[in-house]
Amino acid sequence: MNTFGQIFRLTTFGESHGPAIGGVMDGFPAGIPIDLEFVQQQLDRRRPGQSALTTARRESDRVEILSGVFEGVSTGTPIGFLVRNSDQHSADYDNLRNVFRPSHADYTYQMKYGVRDHRGGGRSSARETVSRVVAGAFAMLALRHVGVQITAYTSQVGPLVLGGDYQQYDFSEIERNPVRCPDPKMADMMANLIRQVKAEGDTIGGVITCIVKGCPVGLGEPVFGKLHADLGAAMLSINAAKGFEYGEGFVGAAGRGSEQNDHFLPSEEAARPNLASNHSGGIQGGISNGEDIVMRIAFKPVATLLRPQTTINSDGQATTLQARGRHDPCVLPRAVPIVEAMAAITILDHYLRALSQHIPTKSTPIAKPNA
Amino acid sequence: MNTFGQIFRLTTFGESHGPAIGGVMDGFPAGIPIDLEFVQQQLDRRRPGQSALTTARRESDRVEILSGVFEGVSTGTPIGFLVRNSDQHSADYDNLRNVFRPSHADYTYQMKYGVRDHRGGGRSSARETVSRVVAGAFAMLALRHVGVQITAYTSQVGPLVLGGDYQQYDFSEIERNPVRCPDPKMADMMANLIRQVKAEGDTIGGVITCIVKGCPVGLGEPVFGKLHADLGAAMLSINAAKGFEYGEGFVGAAGRGSEQNDHFLPSEEAARPNLASNHSGGIQGGISNGEDIVMRIAFKPVATLLRPQTTINSDGQATTLQARGRHDPCVLPRAVPIVEAMAAITILDHYLRALSQHIPTKSTPIAKPNA
Amino acid sequence: MNTFGQIFRLTTFGESHGPAIGGVMDGFPAGIPIDLEFVQQQLDRRRPGQSALTTARRESDRVEILSGVFEGVSTGTPIGFLVRNSDQHSADYDNLRNVFRPSHADYTYQMKYGVRDHRGGGRSSARETVSRVVAGAFAMLALRHVGVQITAYTSQVGPLVLGGDYQQYDFSEIERNPVRCPDPKMADMMANLIRQVKAEGDTIGGVITCIVKGCPVGLGEPVFGKLHADLGAAMLSINAAKGFEYGEGFVGAAGRGSEQNDHFLPSEEAARPNLASNHSGGIQGGISNGEDIVMRIAFKPVATLLRPQTTINSDGQATTLQARGRHDPCVLPRAVPIVEAMAAITILDHYLRALSQHIPTKSTPIAKPNA
Amino acid sequence: MNTFGQIFRLTTFGESHGPAIGGVMDGFPAGIPIDLEFVQQQLDRRRPGQSALTTARRESDRVEILSGVFEGVSTGTPIGFLVRNSDQHSADYDNLRNVFRPSHADYTYQMKYGVRDHRGGGRSSARETVSRVVAGAFAMLALRHVGVQITAYTSQVGPLVLGGDYQQYDFSEIERNPVRCPDPKMADMMANLIRQVKAEGDTIGGVITCIVKGCPVGLGEPVFGKLHADLGAAMLSINAAKGFEYGEGFVGAAGRGSEQNDHFLPSEEAARPNLASNHSGGIQGGISNGEDIVMRIAFKPVATLLRPQTTINSDGQATTLQARGRHDPCVLPRAVPIVEAMAAITILDHYLRALSQHIPTKSTPIAKPNA
Repeated sequence: MNTFGQIFRLTTFGESHGPAIGGVMDGFPAGIPIDLEFVQQQLDRRRPGQSALTTARRESDRVEILSGVFEGVSTGTPIGFLVRNSDQHSADYDNLRNVFRPSHADYTYQMKYGVRDHRGGGRSSARETVSRVVAGAFAMLALRHVGVQITAYTSQVGPLVLGGDYQQYDFSEIERNPVRCPDPKMADMMANLIRQVKAEGDTIGGVITCIVKGCPVGLGEPVFGKLHADLGAAMLSINAAKGFEYGEGFVGAAGRGSEQNDHFLPSEEAARPNLASNHSGGIQGGISNGEDIVMRIAFKPVATLLRPQTTINSDGQATTLQARGRHDPCVLPRAVPIVEAMAAITILDHYLRALSQHIPTKSTPIAKPNA
Repeated sequence: MNTFGQIFRLTTFGESHGPAIGGVMDGFPAGIPIDLEFVQQQLDRRRPGQSALTTARRESDRVEILSGVFEGVSTGTPIGFLVRNSDQHSADYDNLRNVFRPSHADYTYQMKYGVRDHRGGGRSSARETVSRVVAGAFAMLALRHVGVQITAYTSQVGPLVLGGDYQQYDFSEIERNPVRCPDPKMADMMANLIRQVKAEGDTIGGVITCIVKGCPVGLGEPVFGKLHADLGAAMLSINAAKGFEYGEGFVGAAGRGSEQNDHFLPSEEAARPNLASNHSGGIQGGISNGEDIVMRIAFKPVATLLRPQTTINSDGQATTLQARGRHDPCVLPRAVPIVEAMAAITILDHYLRALSQHIPTKSTPIAKPNA
Repeated sequence: MNTFGQIFRLTTFGESHGPAIGGVMDGFPAGIPIDLEFVQQQLDRRRPGQSALTTARRESDRVEILSGVFEGVSTGTPIGFLVRNSDQHSADYDNLRNVFRPSHADYTYQMKYGVRDHRGGGRSSARETVSRVVAGAFAMLALRHVGVQITAYTSQVGPLVLGGDYQQYDFSEIERNPVRCPDPKMADMMANLIRQVKAEGDTIGGVITCIVKGCPVGLGEPVFGKLHADLGAAMLSINAAKGFEYGEGFVGAAGRGSEQNDHFLPSEEAARPNLASNHSGGIQGGISNGEDIVMRIAFKPVATLLRPQTTINSDGQATTLQARGRHDPCVLPRAVPIVEAMAAITILDHYLRALSQHIPTKSTPIAKPNA
Repeated sequence: MNTFGQIFRLTTFGESHGPAIGGVMDGFPAGIPIDLEFVQQQLDRRRPGQSALTTARRESDRVEILSGVFEGVSTGTPIGFLVRNSDQHSADYDNLRNVFRPSHADYTYQMKYGVRDHRGGGRSSARETVSRVVAGAFAMLALRHVGVQITAYTSQVGPLVLGGDYQQYDFSEIERNPVRCPDPKMADMMANLIRQVKAEGDTIGGVITCIVKGCPVGLGEPVFGKLHADLGAAMLSINAAKGFEYGEGFVGAAGRGSEQNDHFLPSEEAARPNLASNHSGGIQGGISNGEDIVMRIAFKPVATLLRPQTTINSDGQATTLQARGRHDPCVLPRAVPIVEAMAAITILDHYLRALSQHIPTKSTPIAKPNA
C-alpha cells in the first residue's frame, strides 16, 4: 500500500516521468499555521543539482498545495499536494524499456504487475521521496508546538566512519557542507571520496544518523506498533535503505547487560527521567522515555553505474547496459532530509495516537494542554 | 495497536501473569489442513526450560484453538486461540510494584498509561511472543502450499560471530544444539559463553540470521509496504530487538555499486531469475525477486541481571534492585522460533496481498493455480 | 474482516458451536474502572431464555476477562475475553450438514470458503453478538466519563408501529416488559403478536429505535468516516438488519427543505447549540451537533421457521427442511442490547479519534479536560 | 478519515473553492485498459448545469490523471488524479464566513476544527463527490472483466414514488430524461414537481434505487465487513443521504418469515443458484449469493433554500440568511452517478478482497481464471 501512518496518514502517488508526484496528508491537526517557505526549503534540501556531488538533473520542484490549508492555517481536512515533473529526459530511458537493470526494481515490477513504466524507474524512482519531504515538513511544523526537533546527518560514506558520540558535534555545521556531515574535516574527506568514486563511474554507500530531541515520554505502542518498529519501517521504506538500528544497535549485540543497562537516577520531574546513560536510544519497551532517540540507517551504493554492465532483456537474453541519464554517485547527502522527514511523519503520527489513549482529565499524562 | 498484517492479521492480547496469552488470526485462508501437533511443536521450541541455557520457568504452554478450525481444516473465519498462564511465581515480582527496572518498560508504561501490571513485566514480557509462535505455525502450514521454507539460527552471541556464507551450513544441525547455531563447534563455544555469563549474574546479546527459501517473485509493495520494511517492522517488534538488516546490510554500506550489483544471467524461466549473486538479499525495490531472502536481527543483552542494580522507585527515590524470578541470560536460542514465526506471518500476508493485485486471468503472474 | 473501529477496535472470533465466542478490544482507554457486574448484566439482557418470547436455548454466558484489566482498572493494553459455549445441542444440526437453509448464510459461506461449520450457523449465528455486547458494555463504562447515554427500544413488531416522538416515552419502562418497548400497552400488543406468530411456527420482523444523548459536538469525519455512515455500518453488521436511517430518514425523503431545516436559535454556550428542531437527528455533515442522535434499524423476520420448508442440498437436489433446535420467533427484544452495544462502540471510537485531531492547547474544543 | 476501502482504496481531498478536487486510488488492479473517455462521461453525468432541474453552476470538470496509467493501461501503482475548480463565484459566499447555515455542516465543522473554509461549504460541499465519480468509473472499467453491471435511478421525488418491481423497467430510459427515472411518465411528473419546488425557492428529497447485476457469489465478509454494511457505509457517506436499505428493507420489517424466505430450487450450476425469489436482495449472511443486489438510498431535501431563513452567526446572535449562489432544488438526478460510483468502488474492493481468501488451486471457488 502507498499509505503510511495511522492517524497522520500520508498517501503518495507518482512516477518519475509521469505528469506529477504528490500525495494526500490525512489527519493533520487543525489550526497549525503553515509556513510554505519552510516546506519549500525542505524540498530544496532534497533537490538534485545542489552540488557537484549529486546528479545534474534539475528539478525546480515547486510544491502546490491543493486543499486543507485556508488563509495560511491547516483546517483538519486532507491536504492534497503535488510537484510537477519537469526537465525529464525521458528519451534517456528508451533503451531501458525491455532491459532489466541490475539491482534495480525493473525485474520485480515487471514480474509483479506484468506492466511497468520503465522511464526513470517509474514508481521505484527515489523521486517519490519528494512527497515524503513535503509531508515531513508539514509534520515538523506541527511538532514545533510539541517541542520536538529532528536532525539527521551523514555519518559514514563507504569506509569513512564518523566516530565518537553525536553530542560532541555542532549540528549547525551539517548544512554548511554538501555531504551534510557535522564534522568539517570528515565532510571534506567524504566529498573527496564521492568525487573519486564518481570519476570512476562507480557509486558508494553509507550510513545516516538521526537524532530526535524533545520527544514526549510515552509515544509508541507496546507490541506491534513499537515506536522503533514504526521508525524502522519508515526508514527501510526509503529507496536504497538496507538496515536500521537504534540505541546500541548491532554493536550492542556483542555486549553485556551489565554494560548496557541505563540506570535511573533520582529526579524531580517524572515526565523527564534522569538516566545515567542512553544505551537504549530513547526507547524502552517500544515506548519513548524522553531521552534523545538515536537511529542509524544503512544505504547501499546506488545501483546505476556510469559504466557498462551485463544483464538480460525481457526475453531473457544477455545484453550490455550503458546507463545514460544523470545519477547520484552517493545518495547519502540528499537522503538526509528524507530521513528527517520520515522521522517527523512517524513521531507526529505517534504523538496524535497517544492523545487518544486516555479520556482526558486534568491529570492525563500526555494529552495535557501545552499552551 | 496490537494487530499485525493487512490481509492475514494477527491481533494479540495478554500479560505475563494474567489468566492467559492469546490472539485472533483473521484472514487465514480457508481449506488449509491444520496440523495441531506441528503448532504445538513450534510452541515447544519457544518454551523456557529447554536447557540449562534458558530460564528455569516451566510453562506447559498448551495452545487451545477456540474457533476457525472445523474438522481439522481452516474455515476462513477468524481463528481465536489462547495459552493459559501457569507456574506463575507472581510473588517474585511484588518488590517491583513501585520500582522502575533499568532498561525495562516499567517506566515508559507507567508514564504512558498511568497504570501498569507490574508482574513479570505485564504486557511488555516476552511471554507475549507465545501468540506469535502460534500464528507463525499456522502461517507455515499455509505457506507449505506455496513452497516457502523459513529457517532462522543464532549467528552471533556476544563477540562470537559465525562467519562465512549461510549456504555452507547444514540447517539440520540447528535443532541439535541448545544455542540453535548450525555450526556445532561454534555452538559449543556459544553455549560455554552463555554459561559463563550466567554464572556471573550477567546477560549477553547477539544476532539471529533468517533465510526464506522459495518465496514467490512479486511479494511486497513498491513504497511503504516494501517487503523488507514490513519484515523489518516484524522483527523490530520482537522484544529486545535493536537492529534489522537484509542483504549486505550495514556492511554493504561501506562498499561500491560495482561490487554489489546483482547481474542477471540468461534464464529460461522468468518466474525464477538467474542471478550471478544475491547481494540484494532476495528483495529489489521492496519486492521479492525469487532469490533467498536473507535477514539479520540484532538483540540486546537481557536487561534483567541476577546482581544488584541501582534505580529509582515511583516516588523518584534511589533504591537498589535485586532481581528474583527466573530469567534467560541470553534470549537468542529461544528467539529463533519467534523470528521464524514473524517471517512466516509477514510472508503469508504479502502472498495473500499479491493475490488481489490482478483480476485473475490465465496469464495472471502470481495468482495462478498451483494444483 | 472481523475488526470494527479505528482507535477503539473490536476483533471478534467464534462459532455458535465451537469451544467459545470472544474477542479482543484494542485501544480501550487506560485508567477506566471496570465494573464487571455491569458487563455481565448487559450480557444477561442479550441472553436467550429470558421470557417465553425468545428461544429456550439456555446460555449461561459468563464472560471471562483474559487481559487488559489489572486490579479493577483498564491498563491500556488489549482486553481479551471469551464466553464459553455450552448447552449446545449440536446433534440438532446434523441434518443441516449438507442442506442450504433458505435465507440463511449456509449457501454463501459454502460458496465463499468451500468449507463451513454447519452447526447452528457457525460464524453466521447471532451468537457472535455476545462479543459485541461485552465490548459495548466496556465502551459504556468509558462513555460514562464523557456523559453519553445510549438507549434503544423496540419501536415496531410486524405491522405494530409505536407512533409519536421518542421524547414522550418513559425509557425506564423499556426493561419492564419482555419486548423492550417503552409503551406498556403497545408492548402487550407486540408480545401477543409474537406469541401468535410463534404458535404458527412463523417469525416476524420489526424496527429498533436508538437514541444517543449527551454526545459531544464534533464527533465524525467529514467524508468517508461520517458519524452516521459508521453508525450505519455498525448497525447493518448486526444479524438480520436490513435497513438503517437517522433523523427523518426515508420518511424525510418525501419532504421539503423548508419543513426539515433545523434553525439555530441564539445560544450562550457554543458547545451545545440551541436548535429549533432536530430533523437532522443530531448529525450534520457527518459530524455530531450535540443534539440527540436518533436512529432506526430494520430487522427482517428470522429465517428459521418451525414448519417444513423446501430447499436444496449441497448436491443441488430438492429436499424438505424441518428445523429443529430452539429459535426466536422475533429477534427484536434481544437485539435491543446489541444495538446499544454497537452504538456505544462506535461513539467511543469516534470520541477517541476526535482527541487526536488537535495538538492540545487550553482552547482545544474537544480534548479539553473534563475533570 | 478520507479513505474508503481495504484493497482498492480511494483517498480524496479538496474543498469546493480551493484549487482542485482530487484523490488517489490505491490497489487498483494492474493491466486494465483505461478508457479515459468513459471516465469523463461519468463525470459529465454528475456535472451541474445539465438541465433546468439542476444548479446553473458550470463546472467543466476535466479530470487529469497524474500517475498509475502508462500507455493506456493501469500499472498497479497508485492513480493520482485531480479536477481543477473553476467558475467559482467565491464572493457569493462572503456573507457566510461568520454565519451557520441551517442543516449544513458549517456549525459542526467550526466546532470540530475551530477553523473552516466557509466558501461553498468547503470540504462538506457535494463537489467532493467528483473524486468518487472518477474512482467509480475506474472501478467499473475493472468490473467489466468480472461481468458486473451497476445501474441506479431515481425512484422517488418527494411524494412521487415509482411503484412496481425494478425488473419491469427499461433501464435504457434512465439517461433519456433529466430526472434519471426509468419510467418516462413518472419522470415527467417528477420533473414538473422539481420545477415547481424550485419556483417556490424550496427544495425536495427523494430515493435512489441501485441494482448490481452479475455480482460473483461470495463477496462480503461474515461479520463487520458484511457486503451490505460496506455498501451502506458507502451510500451513507454521500452528501444528504439519510437512510439505506437492501432487499425488502424497512418494508420487510413488517412481514413474516414465511413470506420473505427465498427458497432454493434445484440448479445445475452452483456458482449461480436458482432461487424462487429475491427478498434477500442478493446478499445473505453479509455475502453475495449471485442474485441481483437491490439497494435503496434516501436523500433529504437540499438544505440551501432560495428564500430567507433565520439562523445565528458565530457570535451566537440571530441573523437572517438569504442564500445566493446557484443550487440544486433536488439532488436526486445528479446523485444517480454518485450512487453507481460508490457501488462500483465497494464491489471492486470486495472482489479483490475475496481473491485473497484462498491459496489458489484449480478448484478455488472465486479466484479461478476467467480468460
